[in-house]
Amino acid sequence: MVIDGKKIADKILNELKNEVAKIKNPPYLAAVLVGDNTGSRRFLELKKRAAESIGIECRIYEFPEKVSNGELRKKLNQIVKATTCAGMIIELPLPAHLNTQVILNAVPEEKDPDVLSQKAQGTFFAGRSLRQAQDKLAILPPSVETAKQIFEEYEIEPKGKTAAVFGYGLLVGKPVSHWLTGQGAAVTVINEFTESPAELSKKVDIIISGVGKPDLIKPDMIKEGAIVIDFGFAGTEKGIAGDVDFEEVSKKASLITPVPGGTGPIVVAAVLKNFVKLIQNA
Amino acid sequence: MVIDGKKIADKILNELKNEVAKIKNPPYLAAVLVGDNTGSRRFLELKKRAAESIGIECRIYEFPEKVSNGELRKKLNQIVKATTCAGMIIELPLPAHLNTQVILNAVPEEKDPDVLSQKAQGTFFAGRSLRQAQDKLAILPPSVETAKQIFEEYEIEPKGKTAAVFGYGLLVGKPVSHWLTGQGAAVTVINEFTESPAELSKKVDIIISGVGKPDLIKPDMIKEGAIVIDFGFAGTEKGIAGDVDFEEVSKKASLITPVPGGTGPIVVAAVLKNFVKLIQNA
Repeated sequence: MVIDGKKIADKILNELKNEVAKIKNPPYLAAVLVGDNTGSRRFLELKKRAAESIGIECRIYEFPEKVSNGELRKKLNQIVKATTCAGMIIELPLPAHLNTQVILNAVPEEKDPDVLSQKAQGTFFAGRSLRQAQDKLAILPPSVETAKQIFEEYEIEPKGKTAAVFGYGLLVGKPVSHWLTGQGAAVTVINEFTESPAELSKKVDIIISGVGKPDLIKPDMIKEGAIVIDFGFAGTEKGIAGDVDFEEVSKKASLITPVPGGTGPIVVAAVLKNFVKLIQNA
Repeated sequence: MVIDGKKIADKILNELKNEVAKIKNPPYLAAVLVGDNTGSRRFLELKKRAAESIGIECRIYEFPEKVSNGELRKKLNQIVKATTCAGMIIELPLPAHLNTQVILNAVPEEKDPDVLSQKAQGTFFAGRSLRQAQDKLAILPPSVETAKQIFEEYEIEPKGKTAAVFGYGLLVGKPVSHWLTGQGAAVTVINEFTESPAELSKKVDIIISGVGKPDLIKPDMIKEGAIVIDFGFAGTEKGIAGDVDFEEVSKKASLITPVPGGTGPIVVAAVLKNFVKLIQNA
């Protein structure tokens, strides 16, 4: 079965629209774009459009490719401290000369719907955001929320299952592998140095990929009936592609996300879900 | 080969002794014991003795089993803020009625040699403590430093290797699996819900265990020639035991830590190494 990410996302956005309608003068979301990456700009436009669809203003702040760490940090500190700004997202990747984590740390935890500042990562990895649902910072990294939404929609229980996570990046591999392990799955993280990835991945129940390499996951690398969730994203000649060879792998998987239209729209909705939660709990 | 943890620990402690000798009036380490757990008391005594052996005073603060979260947090805040106190360690486990992470968060990151506060965990999981060796908070969780010391001593390169980590606790499984993955190993975390742990563990190059269940790891669960590092610790009728059936597994492993005398002394030395680094960089 092919997962309809758009449908899951629309359900979340509809609920959020109702929540936002209850908030008098909702504060805005600041979105930061550095340099001129076409993919980043497009993603940000999608987030802006989704925000507006639920009644949230999204203000985009653009900076030139060559901005320095110090200058950017200073500007972001100013932008984020406005009392009418309830959250800030910084579109990744940043130009190579910038220190990504230092820049992300400009976002205070209570205004960090992406859960990417060091403090927010600490809250997540310490397991507090999972344990204390009443906690105002009980939000999950958007990729994790996306996996969770898919598992809930299709009644998948990760506990006791085996899983392989391809990649260990900041946005997908690291948070998703941590969360899945905490849910009781036996998780194997596979990276570029792994000698025989297929040996490991073809035995597991759940495959999660967040690498950004088209056709990385081939049908001989998965088990018959596996669940395949693709967070990969890359521009190719034929358009946008995920990590999974969808045409072939989808014949073997029991459940699979397409790209586009799979995890992408849910991730956007998850960011907004976090943003609304931060407003509600401010 | 059986790893001599005492020897590795003594080497670290000797280096630290020289470092401490250069510090005028070295500040002290505060060590917190809550309740009357014999194992915890014994561990703390070992840490105190090791601290004293390198010229560091270790002051033990004891609290009754029934102390409340609020009361304990308040007292710890007072203790840790003394300018002559350069670090605080809180012996785990805490009594069940206490919120462990909230108590651990009493320790500010710059005085946290155990790397257990939420902020210190964030620094570690964000990868900053690994990337920036010049950073004053570039310290590793003691279990990670222990694995690193063993790998260095025996010239083991984790990159490209496969590993299984038993358990996903705060002290061992979570930090060690994160670190090993960052080093380029393909790491599988096995937990209590994993259906066929042996199926997974008998294929890997490196086994790390931090569960606290004697004889959990049997010889049929490991590959011939595997490296086995045991952080498990439990009191049994026959004395202190690790997670590994040492007598049998040691016949099959290429390298293995005994319990006691394996990881334990290195962990203690690693805490003090962190403490001295925090003093030097304060």
